[in-house]
Amino acid sequence: MGNASTGGRQRILSGMRPTGRLHLGNLVGALWNWRMLQDEYDCFFMIADYHALMSEYEAPADIAANTREVLIDFISCGLDPARSVIFRQSDVPEHAELHLILSCYTPISWLERNPTYKEQVQQLVTRDIHNYAFLGYPVLQTADIAIYKANLVPVGEDQLPHLELAREVVRRFNSLLGREALVEPQAKLTAAPRLLGIDRRKMSKSYGNQIDVADPPDAIRKKVMAMITDPLRIRLADPGHPEDCNVCQYYKVFDPAAHPDVADKCRNSKWGCTDCKRHLADVLVTFLAEPRAMRAELEAHPDRLRDILADGARRAQAAARQTLDEVRTLVGLGKM
Amino acid sequence: MGNASTGGRQRILSGMRPTGRLHLGNLVGALWNWRMLQDEYDCFFMIADYHALMSEYEAPADIAANTREVLIDFISCGLDPARSVIFRQSDVPEHAELHLILSCYTPISWLERNPTYKEQVQQLVTRDIHNYAFLGYPVLQTADIAIYKANLVPVGEDQLPHLELAREVVRRFNSLLGREALVEPQAKLTAAPRLLGIDRRKMSKSYGNQIDVADPPDAIRKKVMAMITDPLRIRLADPGHPEDCNVCQYYKVFDPAAHPDVADKCRNSKWGCTDCKRHLADVLVTFLAEPRAMRAELEAHPDRLRDILADGARRAQAAARQTLDEVRTLVGLGKM
Repeated sequence: MGNASTGGRQRILSGMRPTGRLHLGNLVGALWNWRMLQDEYDCFFMIADYHALMSEYEAPADIAANTREVLIDFISCGLDPARSVIFRQSDVPEHAELHLILSCYTPISWLERNPTYKEQVQQLVTRDIHNYAFLGYPVLQTADIAIYKANLVPVGEDQLPHLELAREVVRRFNSLLGREALVEPQAKLTAAPRLLGIDRRKMSKSYGNQIDVADPPDAIRKKVMAMITDPLRIRLADPGHPEDCNVCQYYKVFDPAAHPDVADKCRNSKWGCTDCKRHLADVLVTFLAEPRAMRAELEAHPDRLRDILADGARRAQAAARQTLDEVRTLVGLGKM
Repeated sequence: MGNASTGGRQRILSGMRPTGRLHLGNLVGALWNWRMLQDEYDCFFMIADYHALMSEYEAPADIAANTREVLIDFISCGLDPARSVIFRQSDVPEHAELHLILSCYTPISWLERNPTYKEQVQQLVTRDIHNYAFLGYPVLQTADIAIYKANLVPVGEDQLPHLELAREVVRRFNSLLGREALVEPQAKLTAAPRLLGIDRRKMSKSYGNQIDVADPPDAIRKKVMAMITDPLRIRLADPGHPEDCNVCQYYKVFDPAAHPDVADKCRNSKWGCTDCKRHLADVLVTFLAEPRAMRAELEAHPDRLRDILADGARRAQAAARQTLDEVRTLVGLGKM
């Protein structure tokens, strides 16, 4: 199943919508995993600006700035443009072209019964997403994956229906045209540690409960000090319940070596929540020092960012072009 | 309303799906008009292969050959690649890109209530067109027009709803983004003479009642001799009703100077239907001699066809690129 052109390594495609700076939830839930995957796989990491436009079309001006922020976060958090192809979706027109071709091979009913679509149309009340593009969100995702003949897509459980739809579209395309032209992608499920926001809800920009990778030390301290701890521990003398405490979970993720000691101090009332959080703030400030320094460096050299995107676009397009040429010939849009 | 870049001439976009060779109905109903428009307008004539794929996706192999046939018919019938931009839709990726962007600005309800869509889904029983692309047919048409900032689109009455939808999408895009970035196209209604098939039904490949522009003399004669004439004229001595006769209508269109004399001979039983048709066959064979010769010439020089398409793609893309760059910047997908 490997790609001959890449020395037999399997190919991975993953992406993120540019809706703003990345937070610790994104770091822990996706970027740490992506960073590791680079050692073993041929990786394509995409900033999915077309996907962002599908919900932000009424006021899309921020997408460009957000693309820049996400790119800086990607690099600062260890995605390596020398090893991986890091690119912006709209820089590779082949995505839009394959999207249009695969649109012909996607029955509307498959899209309408897609559970994620139904859920989002109900839940996303701050945006009007009853547009044609949003219904076809999974078709564009299919094109994103198929254009690189990616074998694997790192996904969480919640994205499995989308990937299943991508697999169905690829199968239908291959079967109608009588040729295994496109590669049916497999899910690469990863168990990522769970990280809640400072208010114990899901970490999300829309809740305003996130700590950003790029937050300056002051902001980190302020947010950590505002974290909700063990609600059953009222006085210092009360024994804490570290297993139920969000702060303790952060230690587990960002300073696992210290975690047993922290849990002991909490459970046996050796320190109070304020001290515990003050120390966590130090841990996070230290932990994020390197990304912060890399961000400063990149912000000082905007030409470097442009070079990374230009190089990513060039490499992505070279791969995408091959697939598209093959597909165009198959569907009668080939060279005369 | 003219385009500054084209010396103030208004710009026209029109296109045809490559579903096979063109017949006399296409010639009379569209190409004659297009040929004239070249004198006064800056014309873009498109072979809409993406649109063909939307219905032919199950067996799309013929699209490439049909594209070639349509191109030959275009040139043989007087479209002039030196004056007009003659190109294949899929050669200009900007169509697919703008289609994806405009998809975000098109409410699904507008597409679902489009009368042409509802009608075609009911009528087109030989094809399964319940796919995502077909629902978005008018979005791609909008992109086709808007990418060239075309002011005018030559349409028949039946295509007015599609054009109205294109105008609505353009208005919504401009209004949400607060800028007249795209041009709202106007309909250029043209009264074309009506030409029925040899069986008096609408001329159409699917009825098999058409005379192709490229038919050789033998085929033309055979088809003309099979034409249904005045059903009330049984014997030669019966007076004919040229105003109700399909053959007479052909004279009106292809040899208007001879028409009064033909009508007189019919009405006053000066000749029979067989003589009348034999003569019409001569008229058509002569009329189509020039396109036939040009076709032979082009078929003998496939490189010339490739050059025409390459040149058309280059010129179309130069114009499309400008619009797309502007649009991308507006929607946050611009250069960093």
